[in-house]
Amino acid sequence: MAKQAQTAITPTRAEDYPEWYQQVVRAADLAEVSPVRGCMVIKPWGYALWENMQRVLDGMFKATGHRNAYFPLFIPMSFLQKEAEHVEGFAKECAVVTHHRLEAGPDGQLVPAGELEEPLVVRPTSETIIGAMFAKWVQSYRDLPLLINQWANVVRWELRTRLFLRTAEFLWQEGHTAHATEAEAREEVSRMLAVYADVAENVMGVPVVRGHKTEGERFAGAVDTQCIEGMMQDGKALQMGTSHYLGQNFAKSADVKFLNKDGQLEYVHATSWGVSTRLIGALIMTHSDDNGLILPPKLAPIHVVIVPIYKTPEEQERTTAEARAVAEELRGQGWTVKVDDREGLQPGAKYYEWERKGVPVRIEIGPRDLEKGSLCVVRRFVIEQDGETEQEQRKRKKQFIARAEAIAGMPGLMDTLQKDLLERARIMREKKTKIIDTLEDFEAFFKGEGGGFAWVHWAGTHEDEDTMAKRFETSIRCLPFEDQIPEAGRGPGTCILTGKPSAQRVLMAKAY
Amino acid sequence: MAKQAQTAITPTRAEDYPEWYQQVVRAADLAEVSPVRGCMVIKPWGYALWENMQRVLDGMFKATGHRNAYFPLFIPMSFLQKEAEHVEGFAKECAVVTHHRLEAGPDGQLVPAGELEEPLVVRPTSETIIGAMFAKWVQSYRDLPLLINQWANVVRWELRTRLFLRTAEFLWQEGHTAHATEAEAREEVSRMLAVYADVAENVMGVPVVRGHKTEGERFAGAVDTQCIEGMMQDGKALQMGTSHYLGQNFAKSADVKFLNKDGQLEYVHATSWGVSTRLIGALIMTHSDDNGLILPPKLAPIHVVIVPIYKTPEEQERTTAEARAVAEELRGQGWTVKVDDREGLQPGAKYYEWERKGVPVRIEIGPRDLEKGSLCVVRRFVIEQDGETEQEQRKRKKQFIARAEAIAGMPGLMDTLQKDLLERARIMREKKTKIIDTLEDFEAFFKGEGGGFAWVHWAGTHEDEDTMAKRFETSIRCLPFEDQIPEAGRGPGTCILTGKPSAQRVLMAKAY
Repeated sequence: MAKQAQTAITPTRAEDYPEWYQQVVRAADLAEVSPVRGCMVIKPWGYALWENMQRVLDGMFKATGHRNAYFPLFIPMSFLQKEAEHVEGFAKECAVVTHHRLEAGPDGQLVPAGELEEPLVVRPTSETIIGAMFAKWVQSYRDLPLLINQWANVVRWELRTRLFLRTAEFLWQEGHTAHATEAEAREEVSRMLAVYADVAENVMGVPVVRGHKTEGERFAGAVDTQCIEGMMQDGKALQMGTSHYLGQNFAKSADVKFLNKDGQLEYVHATSWGVSTRLIGALIMTHSDDNGLILPPKLAPIHVVIVPIYKTPEEQERTTAEARAVAEELRGQGWTVKVDDREGLQPGAKYYEWERKGVPVRIEIGPRDLEKGSLCVVRRFVIEQDGETEQEQRKRKKQFIARAEAIAGMPGLMDTLQKDLLERARIMREKKTKIIDTLEDFEAFFKGEGGGFAWVHWAGTHEDEDTMAKRFETSIRCLPFEDQIPEAGRGPGTCILTGKPSAQRVLMAKAY
Repeated sequence: MAKQAQTAITPTRAEDYPEWYQQVVRAADLAEVSPVRGCMVIKPWGYALWENMQRVLDGMFKATGHRNAYFPLFIPMSFLQKEAEHVEGFAKECAVVTHHRLEAGPDGQLVPAGELEEPLVVRPTSETIIGAMFAKWVQSYRDLPLLINQWANVVRWELRTRLFLRTAEFLWQEGHTAHATEAEAREEVSRMLAVYADVAENVMGVPVVRGHKTEGERFAGAVDTQCIEGMMQDGKALQMGTSHYLGQNFAKSADVKFLNKDGQLEYVHATSWGVSTRLIGALIMTHSDDNGLILPPKLAPIHVVIVPIYKTPEEQERTTAEARAVAEELRGQGWTVKVDDREGLQPGAKYYEWERKGVPVRIEIGPRDLEKGSLCVVRRFVIEQDGETEQEQRKRKKQFIARAEAIAGMPGLMDTLQKDLLERARIMREKKTKIIDTLEDFEAFFKGEGGGFAWVHWAGTHEDEDTMAKRFETSIRCLPFEDQIPEAGRGPGTCILTGKPSAQRVLMAKAY
């Protein structure tokens, strides 16, 4: 026990990854299950993360010309039915409103009353209802492009749920746009995928692979679905965002037509794209360690926590005053700073609490620091080095720095942490990524708890994909854009399963 | 026709107030009805107003120590049943989810399938579900106060709906707090009502009367409901926000108990408070005129629109360049500025469009302004003066000002507009407010299209309130805080209906 490093999270990642995830969510006080089946409660620390993501994304949507609007929660059942593939995709798991009143029954218990003429579906996504509105708003080519985004809750009746990753109700944004030409619509699809990839990598610090979904994995009703795929620390893939080219499918079912420059009526070309509270799951599973959450400075609700250390009331007064003074100076740089001056709690307990919550930097101020005019600056993480001990790593996290220097260096430190988090995730991904050419190697790679991203040649059918899924629990995460494939794996080859010729490799992995 | 001023909105306020309202909403492109009964679509200009209100309110909630969280959309039917008055208040108008799947029936049409064991209600408000979570989160007095806010959509199945004012689904915020003592909880109720009043008056420019609701008008399950009431231009009252002291009612039904400092278990004292997209209705009905919407600078999505005026391509180039230069300088002051350089549209058409949308300031730049080095600055409104002609008023709105002076004067002008809007609404309210002591005067005041705020003494029963409602269509808007009563009307008197003694006057009006 003496040599074994104690961790704040039990079990550790190595011991039980799925349970570790639940415990990180709990230890960081991000969310919890609710009494309503499949629905979660997002607690203040988790919601603050979502607000910060919203702020970043919303700014980028507006910078690319989109405007927010709000559409009804309910969709008439007949609307869903209009697009054949779409209803196929969503009818199996939706909340259906059939009544608009509750009445006391004979035993005094409430029963549904006031049956609706037409049932309403709680939106699983809003293509159909937004299409109906676009049909009214679009008359001529001058009304195009129409670039709309909605922040909303949606419901998909999931049987097996997991906090943030898969819940019956979740929060998201859904972009919906209409264009005069296919080329413009496809350009929009790419533009918004690039926005998502930018946020994933440069804000969340999660490296992603970009590509197209296979036919079987496409959004129900889409012509093309593009996606970004991140790798979690257990080597599994997580789809983090999708951007769809809908062709004229929804335009035809909702009758969204415009008069083109030649005076002819045409159907618009539509897109839709979305990310959800699932991103918080990606953030947790990519960065957190056995002491809890690790947050990138660009999303952290609190950037710096300052803990005064004292034994006597006189020391308490001096160190707390200094903590407040340092906090003010850091706030002046734009950081959110918390002085943890709670009484009756040991400094160590405070350290662990803020570590569990992922705050990027902690500053400890004791009487000796005051005398020396220095601050003890502790970063939440460093990039792990092979073979170093827990103690060596701890030492690298902690620095005693002259006060003025520590404060002046804060923007640089935050910048380093932001970049290191991405780099650390890249290293982790690198270690679990392999170019594979034989089924034997493939099987060995995914055996047991192993696995990761496998770059393989593929020319199989939809049925062949099912075969792979059954044998290895893997799926084609995407048909990647060419520059996403590791250089050593570019070019044509032969399908790993069928031996047929393949133009380029695909990304295969187990997935959430 | 020559003498009659043309208005952008038909009918005018004087001709048909309710229809004028609908036409302002339409002309400003704020919202429209959706194909889903009772639900509206909030269009980008309307949603931008809501975003601006959210930003202001959210900042004030956080500054008063509240944190945002998110709770499930659905509430199990049994939860609603727990608090007797609450279910009474909300069971009559709620959307009930009974199934979680759609299947193709024998004729190929979809039918609901997968019946739920217990029906779910789409939240009409979240006291019950949040109470269930609070019961888990609160253990000891150290966990109190618990100060939570949620931004969400809610559904109340309204039969007669009107855009923003009353819709089946609406957007709102609901604050929910738990406290150790009644005194602290009541203090919170007052604090949040003060926040609402502050936003109404100093951000929206809508003067409000603050007070308590009568027993019959209280929130279902509350011990005390406080409210702010604004006056619309037709003299009717609009309830703009409410703040409730819930006592221990919900704590008892959800079992929210804490260990007090003496080690004894007690129920918490709870509050809840909310404002909704209804505020946009209040904004429209208080300020708009027969040319459309009028927006306070603190909420306007665009503060200044600049229209270049030209006849030749050379003039177009010069005036547009100047428009962009002026826009940049104003943006540097923090204003959102739109240069309307659309081709193929006359300046007049642009003026009307931005007037209809309520943009506070328009700047016109023509070749002669360039020569003179001046700008034509047109404010969206002035406080009307008795007896002035339409032309005189127009002249007061429009000023030719030296370029540098106009730009340097923009913060002052915006400040003036913000204050004038509140002042203008105060003047309007003053004109339609009366201290009334007899039923005859009361009847005369509310006859026909007249009416407004009547300050009357009241000591009647709930049945007496119904009598007044039936005879005059009026209701007690609030039992005002004493300082809210006009000075001339303070002190005790006798009830206008029953002749019984009354300690102070109440506010009676017709209402939305």
